[in-house]
Amino acid sequence: MTVTETLDQIHSLVTASELEALSELVAETSSPDIADMLYRLPPVDAAVVYRLLHKDKAIDVFERLDSAAQADLVTELAETEVVGVFEALDPDDIVGLLDELPAKVTKRLLRTLSPRQRTATAPILGYPHGSIGRRMTPEYVSARAEEPVADVLVRLRRNADSYETVYTVPIVDDARVLVGICSLRDLLVAYEGAIIGDIMELPASVRTLDDDELAARRLVDSGVLALPVVDNEDRLVGLFTIDDAVRIIRAEDDEDAARTGGTEPLRRTYLLTSPFAMTKSRITWLLILAISAILTINVLQIFEDALEEAYFLALFIPLLTGTGGNTGAQAATTVTRSLAMNELNPRDTWKVAFKEIRTGFLLGLALGSLGFALATLVFGMDIGAVIGLTLVAVCTMAATVGGLMPMLATVVRVDPAVFSTPFISTFADATGLIIYFSIAKAILGI
Amino acid sequence: MTVTETLDQIHSLVTASELEALSELVAETSSPDIADMLYRLPPVDAAVVYRLLHKDKAIDVFERLDSAAQADLVTELAETEVVGVFEALDPDDIVGLLDELPAKVTKRLLRTLSPRQRTATAPILGYPHGSIGRRMTPEYVSARAEEPVADVLVRLRRNADSYETVYTVPIVDDARVLVGICSLRDLLVAYEGAIIGDIMELPASVRTLDDDELAARRLVDSGVLALPVVDNEDRLVGLFTIDDAVRIIRAEDDEDAARTGGTEPLRRTYLLTSPFAMTKSRITWLLILAISAILTINVLQIFEDALEEAYFLALFIPLLTGTGGNTGAQAATTVTRSLAMNELNPRDTWKVAFKEIRTGFLLGLALGSLGFALATLVFGMDIGAVIGLTLVAVCTMAATVGGLMPMLATVVRVDPAVFSTPFISTFADATGLIIYFSIAKAILGI
Repeated sequence: MTVTETLDQIHSLVTASELEALSELVAETSSPDIADMLYRLPPVDAAVVYRLLHKDKAIDVFERLDSAAQADLVTELAETEVVGVFEALDPDDIVGLLDELPAKVTKRLLRTLSPRQRTATAPILGYPHGSIGRRMTPEYVSARAEEPVADVLVRLRRNADSYETVYTVPIVDDARVLVGICSLRDLLVAYEGAIIGDIMELPASVRTLDDDELAARRLVDSGVLALPVVDNEDRLVGLFTIDDAVRIIRAEDDEDAARTGGTEPLRRTYLLTSPFAMTKSRITWLLILAISAILTINVLQIFEDALEEAYFLALFIPLLTGTGGNTGAQAATTVTRSLAMNELNPRDTWKVAFKEIRTGFLLGLALGSLGFALATLVFGMDIGAVIGLTLVAVCTMAATVGGLMPMLATVVRVDPAVFSTPFISTFADATGLIIYFSIAKAILGI
Repeated sequence: MTVTETLDQIHSLVTASELEALSELVAETSSPDIADMLYRLPPVDAAVVYRLLHKDKAIDVFERLDSAAQADLVTELAETEVVGVFEALDPDDIVGLLDELPAKVTKRLLRTLSPRQRTATAPILGYPHGSIGRRMTPEYVSARAEEPVADVLVRLRRNADSYETVYTVPIVDDARVLVGICSLRDLLVAYEGAIIGDIMELPASVRTLDDDELAARRLVDSGVLALPVVDNEDRLVGLFTIDDAVRIIRAEDDEDAARTGGTEPLRRTYLLTSPFAMTKSRITWLLILAISAILTINVLQIFEDALEEAYFLALFIPLLTGTGGNTGAQAATTVTRSLAMNELNPRDTWKVAFKEIRTGFLLGLALGSLGFALATLVFGMDIGAVIGLTLVAVCTMAATVGGLMPMLATVVRVDPAVFSTPFISTFADATGLIIYFSIAKAILGI
């Protein structure tokens, strides 16, 4: 049975209130598959399914959902049910969930936290949004260099059930300064009688105020399961785990993909989003772009005389502005992605400019030669020259501006993805038209 | 010291052949940071740095690189050095690396594999590219339901050093059919004397021939560290681990981001890519798009009479085609991303069409009203009507086609990202012009 078929079946069972059959179906399905389904079901259906889950399975499923889906579900559940869920959650997941909920609900839920949970979540809530401090878990098992490996294994065993990760053990000194790291694997293979200091490795770490996206990419690149989080004095304050890193990266990539296309990421799955919600996620950018495109009308009005005298120049407008837009979008996409991967930083602006000028010129040369040849064949040599030269100039300009826009966005602390494709095409349109008509006036003498 | 500064320092040390200072610098730097640097250094510099690493650290660093960077490095190293690297690699990583190397080098390297490695890599090499079989590790510790937990822990301990993961233990029956799964954490907290059957959970699994991107997203969503891989008879054949899943997703997201912008992903970092290589990654798409944009010239030639009579119609061409392109790009981006997240499949085509028609119409209504008001103020009521109606029609058309293109791509088994932004804008340009001039001719009577 495919997921879609199961979803249809669940929906009809919920609608018909056939809770027994639904309960059986739910019992037969594994937690990851249930989580997948809850994510795709309308919140009301999801809550019905969720209530039918066995308690342990319910917690397991809840932990697999992202914060937005968790928030949707919590909003549907009764307060007593929510308290049960909260009891089993890790502190960083509680914080992630509270961030997603309306302030009113958050306030009410904070009161339901147990004293232990309140102590654990308080430090995390103190760090700014977008920082690693907000995404770390403050609950972990640490060790000292002089401790026997066997003792640490016993401690891990005792805490394995309640802590988010037991696979990474940070090592600290008397001042809680991070001095090393051990994986559970290292502990398991250590020879009998070994002390932690014999087997620990140099730690890679992140700082509480580090940007969460960069830290997440770093964790994923490093191939470990968790990175220790330290404060400005290198004192250990938490662990940043791979599952949280993957969630951060996915959310960022989602946002980048959406913004590159001039829209905001959807809060729910595509099929659950209404045309009104969809319109809302797109209209702002479309309006901004349409209003800035009025600039192209103004530019063309400047050249109204030329257009009146040689109306056939209009034939090439979509081709030329389109090519400029595409060239700019290519450069912007490449640079935006490199910025996201931390391959570039604002100090590289001149290198980017120089590389894009050369790349744009090479692209313009290739397209311009072709354009010159084709246009000369059909429309004659002078029009061929106008088209060829315009393509060279437009490609060089568009690649350079397309590459620089995301760099500029970083400097002024705006998401580079916002600046890339949509903006550059409007800019390339206006500038391309000026270049085109200037060259045409010069060559055709109009 | 920032990464860029360290890189500059390394480059000057390599150039000056100051190996002692370089060796010290390298010894002080952690493995993840070295891997990060190797990734950004030109291959020749990278090989020099790599040779200075202590043996264990060298292997650790090598494993942190992606296959493309590993291949670059292997090409620079001598064969004896490569043999040393291969000895320490996991079978699936060897396969990934061999895939990246030229066939000639692969052949030579296959001969250097140890008999154990040859046995381990052979089954993986038998699965098609893009399938999970190719990315799984065939080395894992499995258990039977009736085994005591303590025995399995002993076995894990013995194998922890040589196997890729010891954190997930699949449980099989006599016919090697997968019946359950245990995490190392579950084993650690199990009460004394427990048998595996008491603590194992229902397994979520993937099949050898499953698409690797979908399986990777599934693993990451499920919040576990590894998924068992089974054949068509549900027999266990391998484990698919989270680090490989994250690599697959990143490579796919990279490719999607690049293709949405009409370019191919770069093989190296931005700053290491020459303008020629950059031009090569962009020129194909630019040419295809420019040549298909010749269609817009043909369309405009059809309306040449109208243009000659009312040249001012040309003023609005960039605004109208641009808005169509943007609306189409928004729809294409959203649908492409939803397809990548497996939220949509080809059977949802009609639902997508219906949703995009309504969304496009709502967007067109908003933009069209504004366009009508502004154009009426400046150019008069009849031009206002032309602009307003054109915007409604163009937005509806562009959103619908933009949403359907990626769906169509999936049906004909082409990467949906290729179809999205660049193609839709060319298509929207041509169709938008036909709509515009048809409406203009009808209303203005030309």
